[in-house]
Amino acid sequence: MDVQIVLPIVLGISVVALIVAAVLAREVLSAPTGNADMQRISDAIRQGAEAFLSRQYRTIAVLSVLAAAAIFGFYAWNAEVPNIKQMGAGTAWKVTISFLVGALCSAIAGYIGMFVAVRANLRTAQAATMSLNRALQIALRGGAVSGLSVVSMSLLGVGGLFYLFGGMQDYQHVPLQIVGFGFGASFVALFAQLGGGIYTKAADVGADLVGKVEAGIPEDDPRNPAVIADLVGDNVGDCAGRGADLFESTAAENVGAMILGIALFPVFGLGGILFPLLARAFGLIATIVGVYMVSCREDEDPMNGLNRGYLVTTILAMCGFVAAVKLLLASPGTIEVHNGYLIMAGFVGILTAYAFVWITQYYTEYKYRPVREIAEASKTGPATNIISGFAVGLECTGPPILVISTALLAAYWFGRLALPTMDPMSAGLYGTAIATMGMLAPCAYILAMDTFGPITDNAGGIIEMSKQPEEIRHKTDRLDAVGNTTKALTKGYAIGSAALAAFLLFSAYLDEIHKITGSHMGVDITKMPVFVGGLLGATLVFVFSALAIKAVGQAAQVVIQEVRRQFKEKPGIMQGTDQPDYAACVDIVTRGALKQMIAPGLLAVLTPVAVGFAFKYLGAAMGFGNQSGAEAVAALLMVGTIAGILLATVLNNGGGAWDNAKKYIESGAFTVDGKVVGKKSEAHKAAVVGDTVGDPFKDTAGPSLHVLIKLLSTITLVLAPLFIL
Amino acid sequence: MDVQIVLPIVLGISVVALIVAAVLAREVLSAPTGNADMQRISDAIRQGAEAFLSRQYRTIAVLSVLAAAAIFGFYAWNAEVPNIKQMGAGTAWKVTISFLVGALCSAIAGYIGMFVAVRANLRTAQAATMSLNRALQIALRGGAVSGLSVVSMSLLGVGGLFYLFGGMQDYQHVPLQIVGFGFGASFVALFAQLGGGIYTKAADVGADLVGKVEAGIPEDDPRNPAVIADLVGDNVGDCAGRGADLFESTAAENVGAMILGIALFPVFGLGGILFPLLARAFGLIATIVGVYMVSCREDEDPMNGLNRGYLVTTILAMCGFVAAVKLLLASPGTIEVHNGYLIMAGFVGILTAYAFVWITQYYTEYKYRPVREIAEASKTGPATNIISGFAVGLECTGPPILVISTALLAAYWFGRLALPTMDPMSAGLYGTAIATMGMLAPCAYILAMDTFGPITDNAGGIIEMSKQPEEIRHKTDRLDAVGNTTKALTKGYAIGSAALAAFLLFSAYLDEIHKITGSHMGVDITKMPVFVGGLLGATLVFVFSALAIKAVGQAAQVVIQEVRRQFKEKPGIMQGTDQPDYAACVDIVTRGALKQMIAPGLLAVLTPVAVGFAFKYLGAAMGFGNQSGAEAVAALLMVGTIAGILLATVLNNGGGAWDNAKKYIESGAFTVDGKVVGKKSEAHKAAVVGDTVGDPFKDTAGPSLHVLIKLLSTITLVLAPLFIL
Repeated sequence: MDVQIVLPIVLGISVVALIVAAVLAREVLSAPTGNADMQRISDAIRQGAEAFLSRQYRTIAVLSVLAAAAIFGFYAWNAEVPNIKQMGAGTAWKVTISFLVGALCSAIAGYIGMFVAVRANLRTAQAATMSLNRALQIALRGGAVSGLSVVSMSLLGVGGLFYLFGGMQDYQHVPLQIVGFGFGASFVALFAQLGGGIYTKAADVGADLVGKVEAGIPEDDPRNPAVIADLVGDNVGDCAGRGADLFESTAAENVGAMILGIALFPVFGLGGILFPLLARAFGLIATIVGVYMVSCREDEDPMNGLNRGYLVTTILAMCGFVAAVKLLLASPGTIEVHNGYLIMAGFVGILTAYAFVWITQYYTEYKYRPVREIAEASKTGPATNIISGFAVGLECTGPPILVISTALLAAYWFGRLALPTMDPMSAGLYGTAIATMGMLAPCAYILAMDTFGPITDNAGGIIEMSKQPEEIRHKTDRLDAVGNTTKALTKGYAIGSAALAAFLLFSAYLDEIHKITGSHMGVDITKMPVFVGGLLGATLVFVFSALAIKAVGQAAQVVIQEVRRQFKEKPGIMQGTDQPDYAACVDIVTRGALKQMIAPGLLAVLTPVAVGFAFKYLGAAMGFGNQSGAEAVAALLMVGTIAGILLATVLNNGGGAWDNAKKYIESGAFTVDGKVVGKKSEAHKAAVVGDTVGDPFKDTAGPSLHVLIKLLSTITLVLAPLFIL
Repeated sequence: MDVQIVLPIVLGISVVALIVAAVLAREVLSAPTGNADMQRISDAIRQGAEAFLSRQYRTIAVLSVLAAAAIFGFYAWNAEVPNIKQMGAGTAWKVTISFLVGALCSAIAGYIGMFVAVRANLRTAQAATMSLNRALQIALRGGAVSGLSVVSMSLLGVGGLFYLFGGMQDYQHVPLQIVGFGFGASFVALFAQLGGGIYTKAADVGADLVGKVEAGIPEDDPRNPAVIADLVGDNVGDCAGRGADLFESTAAENVGAMILGIALFPVFGLGGILFPLLARAFGLIATIVGVYMVSCREDEDPMNGLNRGYLVTTILAMCGFVAAVKLLLASPGTIEVHNGYLIMAGFVGILTAYAFVWITQYYTEYKYRPVREIAEASKTGPATNIISGFAVGLECTGPPILVISTALLAAYWFGRLALPTMDPMSAGLYGTAIATMGMLAPCAYILAMDTFGPITDNAGGIIEMSKQPEEIRHKTDRLDAVGNTTKALTKGYAIGSAALAAFLLFSAYLDEIHKITGSHMGVDITKMPVFVGGLLGATLVFVFSALAIKAVGQAAQVVIQEVRRQFKEKPGIMQGTDQPDYAACVDIVTRGALKQMIAPGLLAVLTPVAVGFAFKYLGAAMGFGNQSGAEAVAALLMVGTIAGILLATVLNNGGGAWDNAKKYIESGAFTVDGKVVGKKSEAHKAAVVGDTVGDPFKDTAGPSLHVLIKLLSTITLVLAPLFIL
């Protein structure tokens, strides 16, 4: 295959995917919008979400411009330092532009996803009054708008910058210059996920504590002034936040794999560098087919329909992967290449994705032992419920890590078998890169399933608040339950890909240092700066989580006070004679969440920078050589990633398990001494406590940790040359 | 100073300290024992504790013999392998004997401490009926029996084995052979702390859930059949468990520092190897003086008395430290040594101990912001209490890690300044070893304060159960509050010393590998086996904690069923007309705890062994060289230690903060809208939930993690030669 046409093909497929996204959006938007009651509620959600996003983006824009200025300043100031100089002409502005484009694309991707999601909720609700299948399709297609645009924007951004910066000629330097794209994406993602995550849980916890606990009104009751803020939260946290999260994943991993491709240039030429983009583009086509295949019978579990679509997507993605390997990773004849082993490495990645999805289900669904144990523990009150849930969270780190360890070793092994005459280290690393590409092939479909969650959640809320008949509620409840499952699966998938990608990005970082200094960098943890760097990296993860969790509590306090004020000043609200001021609540959570996202965000960004610069000089003064800064940051990144994967798993799965233990008790299947124990029982009250504790864990701190892990990678990739004396 | 007399001096001081311990024990035992009611309760506690210990020791003895056989087998089987052969003649049986002696000493130290503690509780209770000062002195002196015997037994064991194995001549090999002593001590400590920790919290949680929640009777009510088991638990968890924990700390760190001393043999000769023992022996003298200095006025906070004693101990220990440096670390003239900098490094350690004690107080006492925030959060129910407490736990990892990082760097720096012409790496490492010795100098006093905790706690229980008048209860309450503080401080100190010692033991491990293979081993985390080893090490910490926490829940279930059975079969118990069967409860918790300690214990022991042997062959097959097993285990140890320090801090301080948030509300100083909110309020109920959640965190999983960290070090030290192909 002529390598010159790869980039046009990738960009072409991306544009086609965007067009398909537009078609899907049109289809969703032209669906019927239900009665006036439903529209009023949906409008309020839409306005709240858009108001939050526009304010959030303004804050993030200011921070991004400051960060861009700092990056430009760092590079321009050091332009004459040999390390920087040899990165090629115009590095300072190229890195900075990449950063800004990455930030912008991330923001656009988040916006598009949410634009459709806050409209798809109403259409899904309306469709549910007619047909379950139609509702399922509208919700998934709404989600697919997000999934397709995220992945294609990332391909357009990386591929476009590579082309514009002249990567087809200067392939050695350009990937190092476009690392800024990944950093821009993670920078925006960090604040988007933090802000959205804080918003959604502050509104949720606040609404529940005043509504359910103090005023004694049910969840989603229209008399609760915070109820709209709660529904808005689902969109800004799950749609916009997770969209930005997965956008940066695809962006960072594309760039990382391209950098590793440079090392294999003698083997595959430009094809090795462009392979990640082509494999991902084929995955886009697979997703489009998969999404259009989804349907379900009226009496069927909608999850079956989604699973069929996932299976089709995965099979097609595997075929596309094989094709991409055959087309681009062929041997030029001079070096021995066993294509089959590279395909095996890719399949390792795809199997890992499956294993993670299965493990997450095991630990968070109430069909299985762990959640049932939590429900059992609820019998003796909230304390034992919490202890049991926390133990499940800690315990469930074991199986995923065994899977990841096996996957890393297997992929490494296949890489070496595929390239037997190559330097074994590079060959093995390329094997793990291929596995990561395999895992990420069906990414757009996974993202569509993720956004499906808040759309169906919102649809349920609209049906509930507009007081539709029982059988329609039943349909949206079923969709909502499926949405909860898909949200949990996506988090498992996000962690798995973060873990696999961490090694890829880390290797890219080392390769970058190698290119700059000409010598291979080891990260020897027996050296003091390296050990201290690792210690600080793990601590960053813990303190960051603390700040994220506390932020929810503080923002929730503001909501509680506002709702209390409204109940006090307008007693008619509770009697149903007066309208609550939804907008005031939305506004107050918005301000609270934006204020609270700053501290954890800055901590995450500044810690690696501070460690890098501190050890650049301190390490050298202590006799550890001129790469001490880079080595300390490498340890910070690696140990921080390990700690982050573990803590995020604890928080996500613990939270999910608590949530479903409550749902299990509510389901009516839970018995004590042969008698059914359900809602309003003491066990249920205890389970509600666990569910509330899990909320900020699984929807704020956990997902923010995914972003943090990748931010650490991209920030070190961008600043690596500056950490070397 | 003639180096030949150092060992006799060390052993002599140890024997003197043991005699002082016997004198203190005699003094405590000859104190009056109160009325018949008090004696009956105390007898029940004593019998329960001794029954538990004898059964636990039988189980541990079986496990120890199996482990010893395995160690002997490994070494004997590989006796002709060059790595093992060059460790010197008789290595197999010397390592095995060291292991068994270490295990035995640890068991004896734990037994002595508990023997006195379960008798001192009654004497303290009786003394409290007369004088606060006398009660304080009896409780502390009872604790000091434990502190002094732990440290002197560790010195006798290490010093004695060194002498018996001919270390004065064969100083190169003998420290490597007596690493078994440290492993034996940690092996017993692991099971002692796990079994004791599970026992204490299973009894506590079980007694509370049936007593307080179901039957509505107060804590420590004699009608509760589990109340004696609860009081027994304080002794077996805190006295025996923590005693074994700190015994292995001192043992492992002595051996580790001696191994590092070998590397400096050209500088200091044998003096450098024996320095750790002498510094520790001087610390013993300082402790004896400090303990005898403690007294307080009747109207004074007893904590002031303890603080004065601690200050005296610290100042004397510093003087002793200076003397030991001057005596043993003098330059032979050929190499430049700046003694002053070595002393500075020691002071870094002592300051670190202070900083840790202060930080722990800040995060766990209700004078300060964090605990007050948790109390505030309790107003809105148990969920917000838990969220807030967990956030405090995560947050409070930051300051200690910054202190440890600074201390490590500073000590390293002083080491290099002290030995400017040496190989900088060895000089720096010796600096950190000296700092660790400094931190551990006042160890016996800290341990005495720790055992003070359960003695006063028990004394309070005896006073409560024997229905003494209010003003006496008030005295024991004050002592009990001080005991809670000292227990929290000790945990902070234990973590700090574990963190500092981790680097010391790790360096000893590398030195050992160096001696065996002749080449310096790097632990380059960019290598796949090293990264995977690190990943597994951190995961081990999480899964181990999960098992420890779950074990408490499962053992507590057994208690709950037993208490329910007794209440049902003997309705007279609640009316006070029938006696509850305390012994049945004690017996059932004993069996439950011993059963539950096996799984986490074996996981901790077998994981490093499995990883070492797996990567020994797998790593080599993958082309990572013949040290892959040792490198993977090194990463497991280092990253596991980092994760362990962080998670233990979260669990200990989170648990302590929850406990004191409850106490703050009970104190009557907590107000809502200007009104005092105390016991029985909704906020208090919420705080009780947090307290219960924190119990297994701070008294089972957290302290077991301290042991785990050091077990990882000693197990790798013992098996290191076997992990190399």
